[in-house]
Amino acid sequence: MHVLIIGAAGMIGRKLVDRIAAKVDALGCEIERLTLVDIVKPVTPAALAGITQAHAIDFADDDTAARLIAERPDLIFHLAAIVSGEAETDFDRGYRVNLDGTRAVFEAIRRESHTASYCPRLVFASSIAVFGAPFPERIGDDFFTTPLTSYGTQKAISELLLADYSRRGFFDGIGLRLPTICIRPGKPNKAASGFFSNILREPLAGQEAVLPVDESVRHWFASPRSAVGFFVHAARLDLASLGPRRNLTMPGLSATVGEEIAALARVAGEKAVRLIRRQPDAAIARIVAGWPTNFNPRRAVGLGFVAETTFDEIIKAHVDAELGSGI
Amino acid sequence: MHVLIIGAAGMIGRKLVDRIAAKVDALGCEIERLTLVDIVKPVTPAALAGITQAHAIDFADDDTAARLIAERPDLIFHLAAIVSGEAETDFDRGYRVNLDGTRAVFEAIRRESHTASYCPRLVFASSIAVFGAPFPERIGDDFFTTPLTSYGTQKAISELLLADYSRRGFFDGIGLRLPTICIRPGKPNKAASGFFSNILREPLAGQEAVLPVDESVRHWFASPRSAVGFFVHAARLDLASLGPRRNLTMPGLSATVGEEIAALARVAGEKAVRLIRRQPDAAIARIVAGWPTNFNPRRAVGLGFVAETTFDEIIKAHVDAELGSGI
Repeated sequence: MHVLIIGAAGMIGRKLVDRIAAKVDALGCEIERLTLVDIVKPVTPAALAGITQAHAIDFADDDTAARLIAERPDLIFHLAAIVSGEAETDFDRGYRVNLDGTRAVFEAIRRESHTASYCPRLVFASSIAVFGAPFPERIGDDFFTTPLTSYGTQKAISELLLADYSRRGFFDGIGLRLPTICIRPGKPNKAASGFFSNILREPLAGQEAVLPVDESVRHWFASPRSAVGFFVHAARLDLASLGPRRNLTMPGLSATVGEEIAALARVAGEKAVRLIRRQPDAAIARIVAGWPTNFNPRRAVGLGFVAETTFDEIIKAHVDAELGSGI
Repeated sequence: MHVLIIGAAGMIGRKLVDRIAAKVDALGCEIERLTLVDIVKPVTPAALAGITQAHAIDFADDDTAARLIAERPDLIFHLAAIVSGEAETDFDRGYRVNLDGTRAVFEAIRRESHTASYCPRLVFASSIAVFGAPFPERIGDDFFTTPLTSYGTQKAISELLLADYSRRGFFDGIGLRLPTICIRPGKPNKAASGFFSNILREPLAGQEAVLPVDESVRHWFASPRSAVGFFVHAARLDLASLGPRRNLTMPGLSATVGEEIAALARVAGEKAVRLIRRQPDAAIARIVAGWPTNFNPRRAVGLGFVAETTFDEIIKAHVDAELGSGI
């Protein structure tokens, strides 16, 4: 099997590569070839060095998608995107990469099938940003997509294209609406959602973190480990049972900031909690108020997708993956 | 006010032009200029000959949208589309016109606003084809769009773009999801939905018509007169109350084929009903089974959109509009 990962240098992409490298049958059958692409050159895993090619390319450039697809990968993970904040400030770039780039990949697959039979599996990273307030208490699988950002719009459009291209038999696609990933490893960033991770990650490392919203704020979370699990599971799943409804809200944990902090206290003690500095930010509070708080992702759960059920697990996943020998 | 109608030679477009010509304040303020475009040259209404320009152009061609928008119309009706059947058989043409063409109009407006302040009203013809089975008994305003045709996909994507461009302030847009229009004037055509109109229109004119499905088949209808009413009402509406949810399912009548036939008997007698020839067609029955049967279009009704409530009214609307002196 030839596997192509578009966006392999991103946070989830890197961890997906690591998972595949650590467990050779993670995707259900032998990998004979692995192609990794991103805007910066992805890291080639040592265990798969002999079969891996890594390229620094902009997948949204003219003809890039066609060149990648001409190699006829059997399984394609498409995780590349301009993030929410940048897609909002740079309208043209957001649409060029998140919509036109994604469509170029889909079109390249369709055109490739014109020469000889070709119908790869395609797993697409969508997002709960396809939803926009107001919401019911729990968002069901048949709730409509009314994004409040250009990023969410681009993801919702890509979902529709994915469903149509799958229905027409051009590829066998599935879209995964990821929860907010927590705890994001790395440094604090300026994303409006950053504090959800910052207030755990920084105190766990003995550093101060800023909390800009009230403890009552509720949101929908999964760990990076669960996110990688979604992609691996989607690659192996029999998609026939999905019928034409190819985009699924992934399971997650609905929790408040207060519940995050309580879990931090249980895992790392009150000393860690004291490193959280309250500094209310009305602008961030306003943005976050438009975000989903809770879902009932019945279809995905029924298909075997699994996420954490407590914030203690989410914190422990981070400690295991990022902090080596512990806190 | 300068009004642009894209798709002015189509069935609804022509009737919209007639409505405007018949009642000069139909759109709520004086029309100083009327531009009509379609793939064939639209008819210029005699009453507005002095202020009307009509062009035969493909609005999806390169730069055509930009040229139209450079004239800075204040109100734009966008009704042009490749119909459902053709969009399914000609994948490239459907996406080129229904998606890329629509996006080109939206983009032209955005770019026009770069030079000087410009934010026209845009009224877009969407369709209940954005929905795909299975459905709840009545489809509510927050039910998700899972189209089962490329046409429906293209309309659903256009709706998302319309909402995002409106949210960003590039134009003041509203999308109208039209019911199946019944009775369509003209000749029987090969559209899978044609029989809904054929079994009324042909007997009303003393001609035989073929019914390919069971009388129990239920669907969602509005007359051409109501459809034109939706567009006129949308042009005058204060859209601020819509917030970011800019696409509305229009009101209609949920009725079975049996109810259509009963209304025909009441309006035109049993002699007309005897002109309906039953000729079951499994292929058409299969297609129709995926179509919506009933809606609860609460938002549109609350905003003052109005449709027929009985099939007798729908038939009488046809008799008034198309048959002049009666049956």
